[in-house]
Amino acid sequence: MNAPYRPQLTDAGRPATYTVDALNERGEVLPTAIAGEHPLTLYVDKREVVTLMTLGQAPECLAIGYLRNQRLVGSIEEIAAVQVDWETDSVVVKTRKGVKGLRQKMKKRTVTTGCGQGTVFGDLMEEIESIKLRDDVRLTEETLYSLLDAVRRHETVYKAAGAVHGCALASNEPMGSEILSFVEDVGRHNAVDAIAGQMWLDGIDGSDKIFYTTGRLTSEMVIKASQMAIPFLVSRSGLTKMGHDIATRIGVTMIGRAVNKHYLLFTGKQRFVKTTMPTALA
Amino acid sequence: MNAPYRPQLTDAGRPATYTVDALNERGEVLPTAIAGEHPLTLYVDKREVVTLMTLGQAPECLAIGYLRNQRLVGSIEEIAAVQVDWETDSVVVKTRKGVKGLRQKMKKRTVTTGCGQGTVFGDLMEEIESIKLRDDVRLTEETLYSLLDAVRRHETVYKAAGAVHGCALASNEPMGSEILSFVEDVGRHNAVDAIAGQMWLDGIDGSDKIFYTTGRLTSEMVIKASQMAIPFLVSRSGLTKMGHDIATRIGVTMIGRAVNKHYLLFTGKQRFVKTTMPTALA
Repeated sequence: MNAPYRPQLTDAGRPATYTVDALNERGEVLPTAIAGEHPLTLYVDKREVVTLMTLGQAPECLAIGYLRNQRLVGSIEEIAAVQVDWETDSVVVKTRKGVKGLRQKMKKRTVTTGCGQGTVFGDLMEEIESIKLRDDVRLTEETLYSLLDAVRRHETVYKAAGAVHGCALASNEPMGSEILSFVEDVGRHNAVDAIAGQMWLDGIDGSDKIFYTTGRLTSEMVIKASQMAIPFLVSRSGLTKMGHDIATRIGVTMIGRAVNKHYLLFTGKQRFVKTTMPTALA
Repeated sequence: MNAPYRPQLTDAGRPATYTVDALNERGEVLPTAIAGEHPLTLYVDKREVVTLMTLGQAPECLAIGYLRNQRLVGSIEEIAAVQVDWETDSVVVKTRKGVKGLRQKMKKRTVTTGCGQGTVFGDLMEEIESIKLRDDVRLTEETLYSLLDAVRRHETVYKAAGAVHGCALASNEPMGSEILSFVEDVGRHNAVDAIAGQMWLDGIDGSDKIFYTTGRLTSEMVIKASQMAIPFLVSRSGLTKMGHDIATRIGVTMIGRAVNKHYLLFTGKQRFVKTTMPTALA
């Protein structure tokens, strides 16, 4: 396999945590770790597109994944360079041939809150009708447990400072699951975009993989994971009705409340294989 | 005191939770409560402004608060009617005299993610320079504890279904704190906007009140609470560096990790009064 194409990239991750003093209930001054948060303005071919508020761990991946998930760029090969400059809080993307109709696309974007960063809601709903996830892949309960164990052991900004959400892309093998990419950010949508960018950079196909998130499974999360062709969606948290509706329609295998040896399987049951014996009722 | 002015309003809250079946690790089918999530498109004087993804508990307050916090409307008296119609997932706002420069304002809004719903980031930063919070008000530790107790006892969608954030506006009296308004939503920014709308409807002045949130104290939350002139900001969760920086600059009294009898006081210490004796070191 040839190495996947890579645009020219900076490597400008920021420190994830900072320490400030806080006074606790005992009157003690405690040096306390807090998560970073930085504005990062994205320019594409000299046009300002968006300002993202980000932890700044993986700003190049974030910019690429944002352009991918917003459907502004169709493949990684279209991107010539991604350059982050924290002096000016900017990331400058150069494309090879320009983004066709960027001006028009920008104009059309009504702000859709909660559902991501200005994606046109109607367009998204249309798009999900065309998504087909693979139906010949399975996730076993054992592999799910090995993923949850890997997540538990992963060192995170969340453990140190809270105030962030984490997303992971994980492999799905009979002998277990491995974290391929783990990104945390102050917004869930940024973390999932950064994963999408990383997948393009590494030439990773999502169609048999697992997407894990610490955050809630809202419509936005379900749509974004599906756009990356990922059939398995696992969250530590709960879900919303619209997340559930869309997962049902697309046929995503969606698992919520997944911690240690507990989980709730909501949709896409046909891809899930129960491999361990039920434990005695507690 | 005269009753505050009220526009013509529908009262179209949606059910907060729905029940779906899920399969747990023991192979049992569990009816499980999940949070609602609905698109709600806001029209102002027949112009489409934004689509909000919302739990739908307080859609009229949400629409009013959105217009307030986006600085599209300057006072509740400017609003003639707010009408929610879930058949078409829309909320139609009629103003008395139109919104001056709405078209221009809409055009100018670059999408700023994480930091709210398309507010121009530069404008927000300029605005915070002009915010002055009252400095003659105090919050005692006892009142803080009574707030945390009230929050703990409050019935919530979160307890039933998770997947939502809660915000509360609370009174701040020497004998304790009472929840004046409590809103949950799938997005934190919606919950805080709905509180802002409720405050306008009820004619509540925020300048001595406490704003409580279950969510993280990001730049957006600090700015929005400050825009409502509220000097006390309390969260169960952590905070980000930018939230901390802005709170320091504005002089917000900001308390994180506040649960039961624990808290961390980060900024604005001059307004906080420690009234209970330190307990023995645990």
